Amino acid sequence: MSNEFDLIARIRARVEAADADPAVLVGIGDDAAVMLPEPGMALVTTTDTLVADRHFRSDWPADDVGHLALAANLSDLAAMGATARWALLSLTLPDADEAWLDAFLDGFLALASRSGLRLVGGNIASGPLNLGVTLIGQADPARVVRRGQASPDQRILVTGSLGDAAAALELQEAAPESLRRRLRRPEPRLRAGEVLAACAASMIDISDGLLADLRHLLPPGLGATLELAALPTSPALRQAFRHDERRWNLQVAGGNDYELLLTVAADRVDGCRQALAELALDVVDIGRVTRESAIVCRTPDGDVFEADRIGWDHFER
Amino acid sequence: MSNEFDLIARIRARVEAADADPAVLVGIGDDAAVMLPEPGMALVTTTDTLVADRHFRSDWPADDVGHLALAANLSDLAAMGATARWALLSLTLPDADEAWLDAFLDGFLALASRSGLRLVGGNIASGPLNLGVTLIGQADPARVVRRGQASPDQRILVTGSLGDAAAALELQEAAPESLRRRLRRPEPRLRAGEVLAACAASMIDISDGLLADLRHLLPPGLGATLELAALPTSPALRQAFRHDERRWNLQVAGGNDYELLLTVAADRVDGCRQALAELALDVVDIGRVTRESAIVCRTPDGDVFEADRIGWDHFER
Repeated sequence: MSNEFDLIARIRARVEAADADPAVLVGIGDDAAVMLPEPGMALVTTTDTLVADRHFRSDWPADDVGHLALAANLSDLAAMGATARWALLSLTLPDADEAWLDAFLDGFLALASRSGLRLVGGNIASGPLNLGVTLIGQADPARVVRRGQASPDQRILVTGSLGDAAAALELQEAAPESLRRRLRRPEPRLRAGEVLAACAASMIDISDGLLADLRHLLPPGLGATLELAALPTSPALRQAFRHDERRWNLQVAGGNDYELLLTVAADRVDGCRQALAELALDVVDIGRVTRESAIVCRTPDGDVFEADRIGWDHFER
Repeated sequence: MSNEFDLIARIRARVEAADADPAVLVGIGDDAAVMLPEPGMALVTTTDTLVADRHFRSDWPADDVGHLALAANLSDLAAMGATARWALLSLTLPDADEAWLDAFLDGFLALASRSGLRLVGGNIASGPLNLGVTLIGQADPARVVRRGQASPDQRILVTGSLGDAAAALELQEAAPESLRRRLRRPEPRLRAGEVLAACAASMIDISDGLLADLRHLLPPGLGATLELAALPTSPALRQAFRHDERRWNLQVAGGNDYELLLTVAADRVDGCRQALAELALDVVDIGRVTRESAIVCRTPDGDVFEADRIGWDHFER
């Protein structure tokens, strides 16, 4: 059994074993971290918290939890077109379990390293398991992409595929590994976000569900038409949910996809797809921004599909 | 009963009613906040979490909790000699209680406003009450004051007074209002930190207790002698604890003081006190850095005093 300071020393030793970041003047172990930002760049900062048995199950492997806690935050930076720089980690742990912490760090630090992110500070307290991550990234201030900037007739694009994580949640133990992995180890679309920032009018990451997050791209009074046949669908999802309506519900309202959703002027769609092809990631056209305020989902037969629910609200259930 | 988005809208409306911060390009309501840092300044960033019934009692007034959550973090910026700029707030709430949130914001935003701090983003989740604050401040990179930089024969100085918050914790309902206020509404020494950064060799804020935090100022192998008679003591504390040893225990190991503790070259002590006098805040000389590794507390009679415990560890009890 360790104490708080042992745990911090453990984290610090692992971070300092990695390559130094010359922009970090003071890292883990002081009252605050001190960094030199790159001249001319804007800071892009986000914070997100994972609560046990709400955002993940307590019996999940700790390295998956470490990956997920960081991925959810990186996805927010990606949605702004930002690059990742520094992280702060605020851990509330029920006990000082070194093995759990080490595994958590395995997942967290591996993704951090791949993402060009340095852990510079944080905090450990005891209490019900709660994992807070704050990221500071940077972006060219002229290139930041916001929500709420969609215009009529822009096309609606989405990266990757939709519905896998929601399917894994619904199938629980019966979920095939590839779906489960999308739930526990989503891949934040950081590089894609940087590339898409050059062509997107408006962008968001899908965490609450396609319909709920699309709503955030639309200024008041605008709506959208989505073609359900165009939704990008993994082979595993198609196999697990052969019934169209069940699958569509997962794809439009399931959430936890961590894909990027964006609106793009119609004449820029091809350029956008080509730019992304270099990253070996698909971005597909799933619909259009309209002047009507509703978001309408159309089946392949041209019928209107009503989803069972809109999306995820933390206090809804 | 509100949902998550109603609560965020509530916070946003209050923040936007305040004067705009022209350095904030994107504030509350997008995937991330975007700010323009001041050229040439270093970022100073810290995060801290308050856990219900650990760092505060669930039955405390929510405005006190809001003040405390921010004050604990501001105190960390003060200890680096930084000024406060932007805050992120990560709230995990058991239910969407608007009245509680409004009162929490009363305390949080009042202190933020007085501190030149703008709330730019955050996150709300449901779960056991957990309040995470991340601050981004700025400092002249040549003026940042660190821990662990004390040298032999430097004087040890502390601002304000010690032991009041610990006394309030011990006395519980019987604590007089002035002590209780020090526990629930500590005043972070931001302006003092900026001023003291010009003369301090090493600095920290006292959250875990004088002895524990002094240890962080001392490089390996160095120690200190503290004069208990010199510890700054409020009239209320002296009245509540007339027995010297009980009072000293609260002052050296109680914690939650949020005063600044620093080491200063002996010939700079007077200048340091004069600089601080303009803020109507005392800073007093309580001892000396030594070449022996122990921290020794001396009574007015010259005896060595052994404290009951060293300080606060989150996993100790």
